[in-house]
Amino acid sequence: MLLRVDSDRMRADFDALAEIGATPDGGIARTTFSDAHVAARAWFQERAREAGLETHVDSAANHSAVLPARDPGARTLMLGSHLDSVPQGGRYDGALGVLGALEVIRAVKDADLDLPVALEAIDFTDEEGTLIGTFGSYALAGQLSPSLLAAPRGGRERLVAEFERMGLTEDGVLAASRDPATLAGYLELHIEQGPALERSGIDIGIVTGIVGSSSFRLVFEGDARHAGTTPMDARRDAAVGAAAFVLGVRETVTCDFPGCVATVGDIATEPGSFNVVPGRATLRMECRSPDAAELDALEQALVELAHEVTGEFGLDLTVERVGRFEPAPTDERVRSALTNAALALGLTTMELPSGAGHDAQALAAITPSGMVLVPSVGGISHAPTEHTAWEDCVNGTNVLLGATVALASDAGEHVVPVRHP
Amino acid sequence: MLLRVDSDRMRADFDALAEIGATPDGGIARTTFSDAHVAARAWFQERAREAGLETHVDSAANHSAVLPARDPGARTLMLGSHLDSVPQGGRYDGALGVLGALEVIRAVKDADLDLPVALEAIDFTDEEGTLIGTFGSYALAGQLSPSLLAAPRGGRERLVAEFERMGLTEDGVLAASRDPATLAGYLELHIEQGPALERSGIDIGIVTGIVGSSSFRLVFEGDARHAGTTPMDARRDAAVGAAAFVLGVRETVTCDFPGCVATVGDIATEPGSFNVVPGRATLRMECRSPDAAELDALEQALVELAHEVTGEFGLDLTVERVGRFEPAPTDERVRSALTNAALALGLTTMELPSGAGHDAQALAAITPSGMVLVPSVGGISHAPTEHTAWEDCVNGTNVLLGATVALASDAGEHVVPVRHP
Repeated sequence: MLLRVDSDRMRADFDALAEIGATPDGGIARTTFSDAHVAARAWFQERAREAGLETHVDSAANHSAVLPARDPGARTLMLGSHLDSVPQGGRYDGALGVLGALEVIRAVKDADLDLPVALEAIDFTDEEGTLIGTFGSYALAGQLSPSLLAAPRGGRERLVAEFERMGLTEDGVLAASRDPATLAGYLELHIEQGPALERSGIDIGIVTGIVGSSSFRLVFEGDARHAGTTPMDARRDAAVGAAAFVLGVRETVTCDFPGCVATVGDIATEPGSFNVVPGRATLRMECRSPDAAELDALEQALVELAHEVTGEFGLDLTVERVGRFEPAPTDERVRSALTNAALALGLTTMELPSGAGHDAQALAAITPSGMVLVPSVGGISHAPTEHTAWEDCVNGTNVLLGATVALASDAGEHVVPVRHP
Repeated sequence: MLLRVDSDRMRADFDALAEIGATPDGGIARTTFSDAHVAARAWFQERAREAGLETHVDSAANHSAVLPARDPGARTLMLGSHLDSVPQGGRYDGALGVLGALEVIRAVKDADLDLPVALEAIDFTDEEGTLIGTFGSYALAGQLSPSLLAAPRGGRERLVAEFERMGLTEDGVLAASRDPATLAGYLELHIEQGPALERSGIDIGIVTGIVGSSSFRLVFEGDARHAGTTPMDARRDAAVGAAAFVLGVRETVTCDFPGCVATVGDIATEPGSFNVVPGRATLRMECRSPDAAELDALEQALVELAHEVTGEFGLDLTVERVGRFEPAPTDERVRSALTNAALALGLTTMELPSGAGHDAQALAAITPSGMVLVPSVGGISHAPTEHTAWEDCVNGTNVLLGATVALASDAGEHVVPVRHP
């Protein structure tokens, strides 16, 4: 008989978690290291202890709940996601994956299965990029470079202040990497965050790979001048240059890079009053592609565009790349395990790439990794109206459970070459 | 012999005032009711009391220093400007006019002149528009409408909070109006804030009139969506619409309204992160024209543009006009007095309109008003690098003094019809 997760128990936990950092519009505000985020992580580990699991926090602040194997030298199969959110986020993104991982491990424990691997449910630090983006998972994968810490997406000043406040150090963060030989794989359950599953009427998405992304901070500098006395032709208006760039980004990616996306997610003008021509505009921009070479070309086209625009309007330009995540294909054996688990449950599946970045992107570089997606209503995510039917949440978690049991059992039957770092 | 102001005394005061709210880049941050602004106003009245002048504060928080006339029923000739600044402003805008007014009154007092009018140096509240814009002068002129208080430029919430904090009430503010029959005129010394005087090599500008201006808050609403999973053609990106509007404003005013200016001084996007398509963009926009009908047409063209742009990008739009100041011609007799005073000092003059709004705009509606401008280096203002040669500051103040004595003496010789409100 197939194991199933406890839908009611998981639902109660889901609702309790959604209260932490809840916003009046039904969403979640749980940016990295905010009070709500810290509270959610503490709540997660408390629930794990109540279930009889071990808990630990590593030096990159990743929070784990562990069901050890009988053999203390056994490898670990990890299941996880993240409890942080974007500033005005939804209740499912990240949270479902962490709760699903916890529920799968509780189900295995309840069934008293004797697996040849340890199971670890992990809540990775700062997936959404308040500070860096997929920070905890890259740290664990040993792929967090000092240069990324030097010019992080949220600004160096904020990073230093938050590390200090949370008792983290850069040495500690860089030392959070795990020996790949100790890992048996990584599985992540997540909402799709796009419309493909809903449009196709398919229950379960099996991720073929995660697109790569690059993020940039661009500063357009002109002259802050009196808006009443400075003639139109004597202005160096940073907002005008920024506006031309925003339209150019859209045109460039639409016309020349049809498989990609690019977004100016934030524009901030200074000094920012009615009666002063903006002297500075600071933009946050990112672009994504499933192919590394195409991502290179897209990056180059957008940076060239910024130079053209600032030249046209007589502005100065500073461009800083503040993040680059390589496209990451998932593991074929893991994909099969997820697909088989879904089929055994009578669920329909489709393979699809993930346009969103995920912690699995970091893990894929060091251990066999895979992701299972469930439909997002209207394709909405990163917004308070983000929603997934509860039945789909449970379906995805049962697929995660089935694949976990299959891969864990399998892991005992394979000789794995030990890799020394 | 011509009276002259005391350059050294005024310079010492100017330097002391420039310390209050000084920023590291040599500028001033003295937005309305900030600690620095409150301190500057207290300092001004303290200096006035040291000079033996009376001081008072009216129910719109306008700060005055008064040299009474021998006849307690005499009318008042006002001289003034403002001590508040834009968020990152310079040391001359407003401050020169208040200090010049104080210095003129001290010079008249030192010379023991027996004028048939009282002289009042006044520091008007919130000229720059942290809350409303030329707020104190419009209140004094009885032209502050309840509707302006209901939808102020800095937002209703901020207005209510600041009124509460500063002990102001709306009834009090509306009751701050002066009976025009008690006034003999209004003079204001100000830096030009544009390049005309410097380019022409002229010492003194005599303002023919002040351009009218309108300010708007525009909110572009789209959908906040995941920047990685939402295809380009499925987006309602508020930043893209805002960008098209910013470029359109520039094109509209440049092509169709050559004598006018229009500025988007601020763009704020929400939620404002790399990986979310902006769901909302809030813009602050203003436009100016020397002619009321042209200002009407410009307003209409820009609002139509906003509707066109939001239609094109599938966005929702909210437009709120948060300020309108009518064009205000200056008084011919006051212009003559200023010109004659300059000529008597051997200074060159030119007549010019003021592209900047000023407190004189409000006063012109109720009493004969005029303005004298001195050159701004590079035409720069509303910026830390704003600068006027000290000799020009002194020249302007001496012109203010000469015109004050002439108009004051004159005022005693004219029968003025008493107006009942």
